[in-house]
Order: sequence, then C-alpha cells, then structure tokens
Amino acid sequence: MPMTADDLLRHLEQHYAGIPLTRAMGLRVAAADDARIVLAAPLAANVNDKGCAFGGSLASLMTLAGWGWIERIVHGHGLAADIYVKDSRVRYLAPVWQDFEAVARPAPGESAEPFLATLASAGKARLRMCCEIPLPGERPAATLEAEFVALTRR
Amino acid sequence: MPMTADDLLRHLEQHYAGIPLTRAMGLRVAAADDARIVLAAPLAANVNDKGCAFGGSLASLMTLAGWGWIERIVHGHGLAADIYVKDSRVRYLAPVWQDFEAVARPAPGESAEPFLATLASAGKARLRMCCEIPLPGERPAATLEAEFVALTRR
Repeated sequence: MPMTADDLLRHLEQHYAGIPLTRAMGLRVAAADDARIVLAAPLAANVNDKGCAFGGSLASLMTLAGWGWIERIVHGHGLAADIYVKDSRVRYLAPVWQDFEAVARPAPGESAEPFLATLASAGKARLRMCCEIPLPGERPAATLEAEFVALTRR
Repeated sequence: MPMTADDLLRHLEQHYAGIPLTRAMGLRVAAADDARIVLAAPLAANVNDKGCAFGGSLASLMTLAGWGWIERIVHGHGLAADIYVKDSRVRYLAPVWQDFEAVARPAPGESAEPFLATLASAGKARLRMCCEIPLPGERPAATLEAEFVALTRR
C-alpha cells in the first residue's frame, strides 16, 4: 500500500522532533510535496543580539529543509537511508525581522528519479539542493546551495 | 583604562547569552585571545537523528565563533558595531560523536589592524574568518570560511 501525503508528513515530523535543536527553533513542516518542502520557524526562538533572525537559524532551517525533502522521497519510495549534508554555501542577503520559512527544492538539473535509482542500486547517492528564506519582495533573505549524500541503512 | 581579558570574556558571554539558540546549544566560551577564539558545546544538546552532531549546530557554532572573535576585538578597541555574517562555505568532513569545539581565526592574509582602522574611519569594514571543528586526528570534522561585515553603531 503506497504511503499517503499524511504518512510522509508524520514521518518527517517524527524525524525533526528527534533533533533537540529543531525543537528549540520551534520548527514546523508547513508544506511538503514532490516538488518542494517548506519549513517554518518563529522569530522569537531564533532571534540574535540585534533583534533579527540569527544567521545560524536561517542556515540550519535551510539545511533541515534540504535534508527533509530528500528524507521524504527516500522514505516514500520504500528505502531507508542516512542522509548527510556534505558541503554548503550560504549567502545572507537581508535581515529577517519576522517569523520565517525555508523552502528547498532540487538544484537545477537535479531530480528525484536518478538519485533514487542510484541509491537503490549502489547504496549511495548524492543530490544537490537549493534552499532559500523568502521575503515578501523579490529577493530572498538568504540562500543555501548544498550537496547531500545518502547511504542506505543495512 | 584598557579592558582586561576577563572584561572581554564577560562581554562576549553576555552577547552570546542574548541569543536564545546559543543557550539551547549549551554554548560556552572555552578560550579567547587576539589570535583565536574557542567555543565549546555538548553533544547531547546538539545531536541529530543519527546520534552524531547536527550539521546545523556545527555550522552555527563555527559562525558564532567567527562572529565572536570580531566582536571581541571591536569591543576591545573601544568601538561598537553590529557584526553580520554575509557569506559562508561549510564543508562537513567527518561525523562528530562527542562534545565538540569550534575554533575561529582570521583567514590567511587578514588581520585585526586594517579591519579596525577601516571600521573606525569608514564606519564599515569586512573581515574573512576561517573556522573549524577540530577532531583528535589531523582532519577537522568541519570547516567554515565566512565573510563578516561590521557597521559601527551610531
């Protein structure tokens, strides 16, 4: 029986809840589908000494979004893997003065199918993700490009 | 009267304590001088779903170390500035299975004097920092290269 969107959401929420810092950040899964994932966090738990969002929280939420999108498709295809972030580049473009979200999707040229096929056959696969903290205007507050590695669990 | 090392340590600790996520991480200033800063954090508060340190905690501690080294020299020279991380590159090289530290120092070719002189005269200055999470062996668990921008407060 294929997993429903609700099954996958609960799976993700359980995974996130297992990381103490995500609870401290007040992380919430706002939306998730095969195209992208959206995580939300309140400013109050993630504020810095200047009253805007702490850069470490922005980078962490974007990293967790990239990780979660991959965890969701891996689990949804009946695989079990440990997923690690390997390398990331973060650009901080504007301060964030309100509650915020991180959106993650595969990087241009990347998609789920070849990644899952390689993971299933070789037990290891890489995927690059693009993440951002959107703002009401055109420019995001921050962007993250990251490479993740998945290793199937035995 | 020049500030003592203890004055500067207390100043830093107060700054860090003002960021809720640093309290959740259990951040502690282990050492700080004009050459480098060392921050420490326990694994338990920073663990991920796999039982090793959460990548977001490693990146956050390194970012906070880079930020703190700059805050310390700015304050030590009688200046007051808001210090922002602008851009960073993180490489995750090995999992961390114990309490960990982040060490930050100016990047090769960078030093405090020209940065402080520019900040004092122009009200804005940039500094690149190199940070790492050392492991007992030769290779660190993670490295971060980041550019910070300081803006004097009016």
